[in-house]
Amino acid sequence: ALASRLSGGHVADNVEILNQLEPQDAAAVLVLLPVDISIEILDKPELNFGPEIVVALPRQTATILLAGMSADMAADIVQQLDEPARTELMQALDEPTRTTIEGLLAYPENTAGAMMTTEFVTVPATWTAERTLQHIRQVERTRETVYAIYVLDAFTRRLVGAVSLRRLISGEPSARIAELARSPITTSPLTDREEVARLISRHDMLAVPVVDKAGHVLGIVTVDDIIDAIIEENTEDAQKFGGMAATDQPYLQIGLPGMIRKRGGWLCVLFLGELLTASAMQHFEGELEKAIVLTLFIPLIMSSGGNSGSQATSLLIRALALREVKLGDWWRVALLELPTGLILGAMLGAIGLVRVVAWQKFGIYDYGEHWMLIGLTVAAALIGVVVFGSVAGSMLPFMLQRAGFDPASASAPLVATLVDVTGLMIYFSVALLILSGTLL
Amino acid sequence: ALASRLSGGHVADNVEILNQLEPQDAAAVLVLLPVDISIEILDKPELNFGPEIVVALPRQTATILLAGMSADMAADIVQQLDEPARTELMQALDEPTRTTIEGLLAYPENTAGAMMTTEFVTVPATWTAERTLQHIRQVERTRETVYAIYVLDAFTRRLVGAVSLRRLISGEPSARIAELARSPITTSPLTDREEVARLISRHDMLAVPVVDKAGHVLGIVTVDDIIDAIIEENTEDAQKFGGMAATDQPYLQIGLPGMIRKRGGWLCVLFLGELLTASAMQHFEGELEKAIVLTLFIPLIMSSGGNSGSQATSLLIRALALREVKLGDWWRVALLELPTGLILGAMLGAIGLVRVVAWQKFGIYDYGEHWMLIGLTVAAALIGVVVFGSVAGSMLPFMLQRAGFDPASASAPLVATLVDVTGLMIYFSVALLILSGTLL
Ligand SMILES: [Mg+2]
Ligand SMILES: [Mg+2]
Ligand SMILES: [Mg+2]
Ligand SMILES: [Mg+2]
Ligand SMILES: [Mg+2]
Ligand SMILES: [Mg+2]
Ligand SMILES: [Mg+2]
Ligand SMILES: [Mg+2]
Ligand SMILES: [Mg+2]
Ligand SMILES: [Mg+2]
Ligand SMILES: [Mg+2]
Ligand SMILES: [Mg+2]
Ligand SMILES: [Mg+2]
Repeated sequence: ALASRLSGGHVADNVEILNQLEPQDAAAVLVLLPVDISIEILDKPELNFGPEIVVALPRQTATILLAGMSADMAADIVQQLDEPARTELMQALDEPTRTTIEGLLAYPENTAGAMMTTEFVTVPATWTAERTLQHIRQVERTRETVYAIYVLDAFTRRLVGAVSLRRLISGEPSARIAELARSPITTSPLTDREEVARLISRHDMLAVPVVDKAGHVLGIVTVDDIIDAIIEENTEDAQKFGGMAATDQPYLQIGLPGMIRKRGGWLCVLFLGELLTASAMQHFEGELEKAIVLTLFIPLIMSSGGNSGSQATSLLIRALALREVKLGDWWRVALLELPTGLILGAMLGAIGLVRVVAWQKFGIYDYGEHWMLIGLTVAAALIGVVVFGSVAGSMLPFMLQRAGFDPASASAPLVATLVDVTGLMIYFSVALLILSGTLL
Repeated sequence: ALASRLSGGHVADNVEILNQLEPQDAAAVLVLLPVDISIEILDKPELNFGPEIVVALPRQTATILLAGMSADMAADIVQQLDEPARTELMQALDEPTRTTIEGLLAYPENTAGAMMTTEFVTVPATWTAERTLQHIRQVERTRETVYAIYVLDAFTRRLVGAVSLRRLISGEPSARIAELARSPITTSPLTDREEVARLISRHDMLAVPVVDKAGHVLGIVTVDDIIDAIIEENTEDAQKFGGMAATDQPYLQIGLPGMIRKRGGWLCVLFLGELLTASAMQHFEGELEKAIVLTLFIPLIMSSGGNSGSQATSLLIRALALREVKLGDWWRVALLELPTGLILGAMLGAIGLVRVVAWQKFGIYDYGEHWMLIGLTVAAALIGVVVFGSVAGSMLPFMLQRAGFDPASASAPLVATLVDVTGLMIYFSVALLILSGTLL
């Protein structure tokens, strides 16, 4: 009953239904479905227990389905299989499918090679439009996309051009395919998927061919997989900016041990950094004892620096990721962040000063005889801390990129920690400057 | 010379070259280029000064190019024109183009209606595959995409099916198009672009038709524009999470006044929130005076709460955006964050305790006779603050969504501010509990 219902619906809906079932039950349903519908379902990256389902299938069904799937998804599933199922299944596969999958598994994760699929259309440059169209009609069912046709040199089989299907069908049937083709936009198998995403988005392509150094097409990366990659990369970056290790699992599947692993590491590192604030405070112990009133504003001043730093860092992580600024632009950025920090700091400083004056005047709190100097200390420290936060927060992603790290590893908590320690120093230095001779 | 060079290159490269020029110069180049190449260039959303360039063009060229552009980009450009240029240019346009653009401009920003374009292919359900293909060959040049063909009821003109071009060319030429068609996946003009992106990514579509309530196709949203929308939404979310208003301008174009506007608002709001920390400190003034040693750990404890809150918030903003958790799952999340916070807090508490003991034993700092109790106070406060940070940070996005706001408006600084104020309370309460009778 379920099987017949699935035959009618959209594949994405079918995947959602199967995601509710145990892998064994899902496998039982797949066996009952027409082969092409089962293949469609296994081809969706949204299917949760693909590897478990494949293992639960009768061996023969599994090999038929894997051979029929698009090679990129088949490789993803094989990669996640445990031994001995993995080796057993690979042996059972037909030779070409096995070779293809082994080839794809050789590329490192998150590269074009690991994302690409091998079902694309190539034709020799000597063919006509009509013959090409004829060929496409025959192979259409076994190709991931037929909307881009890659034209190969008839002799060397190197990529010489790309034709879109729309151009092909609207061109003269007798035209040579090489005449319709445009110079191809390509990528290489070791290119990072973020770079591939930029290329696809820049040229509005539906697929990009992956070529080796000699110019042979190894596979294609399609736009649907690029969308998934963009979303995954953004999730990673958001989690890293939040101050944790990136996780590729849905929230409710992470589990308690996973949570501790992903969050504990950074939390401890940040804590060790923050321990410096205790040392800094110990250093200024004498000042603290003389002027306890100064402690009242410590959280306020430190957090303002962290907040302005978090703003600057989030702005620059995205600007670097979108290539809006380049590494060499750091001084332009610093030149903009400096006045920005000054003005924002002055705004906060003004509010802080008004607050001290108001509380004093209205008798809400008594800051002592030097209340005006205390207000000025707070205001000046705020300016200093916000300037430092904006500049340091904006430079941090540059420094990380310069040092070969992902600029997206800069996180709001990391910036806050940096600024907390420095902010304390700035506050006490300003206080010494303004208050020595009176309170200090 | 430049014009002839542009005729050869890829349009994305041409756009980058024109982005280097003043709008007047770019317009002068466009006039020299073949019309279809100029149109291609204006059709790229990456072109920086589209509206300025159109204004700088001779009126007649401008109208020809606008009429030739895809309607979605033409509408985007007209929308950004200042008066009187806007009205003048609209009057100069041919009637159908003007009506189309006016129609598109009527939809609110960031909806399917505002993103869609009107150059799509529809055929009556009564046609054959062959006749449809014939039709596509004729209209191909004026359509944004021909890879999805929408089948309309011959009489009511309502959408009854969708056929992909690949299915069309591989089907029997004599087959009725209605037989090749599948039930269409559609969206409505007021659907948010994030929802449209989810639909396209879920069904791996190249375009989705936008239909009105009666079932008539109003336009299509294409995958290239969806990729741009996903990237924009992610940039907005990253900036909001950093604690500022989202900006849709590239970093170096925001300028100093823009920076102050986008960042000053939230910074002031957060500052007003943080002022509560000063009030809290004033409230515990007596305790502070008795045990100055307590102040040493204030920044440490507050920041640990903020950091764990920032982790939890970034996790849940993404989980909600990706529909991994739903509003009703809040209690599942709370049930996971509670033990997570306990374990993470215990880890930090242990480090904090070791630090106090070590400094005391090695004589680096003397915390007084009750140093062990102080160490325990710090450890207990860390557990309390990290639990509160994790739970509050994870619940904040739910509360925002429940109240009708974008859960992505929760930011790391906002969470930090919430936790700072509460963290102080927790710290002093724990201190009163553990230290009263000795230090307090
Ligand atoms: Mg295959
Ligand atoms: Mg793969
Ligand atoms: Mg990456
Ligand atoms: Mg694009
Ligand atoms: Mg794929
Ligand atoms: Mg990344
Ligand atoms: Mg803080
Ligand atoms: Mg038009
Ligand atoms: Mg628009
Ligand atoms: Mg939105
Ligand atoms: Mg998808
Ligand atoms: Mg468009
Ligand atoms: Mg959004």
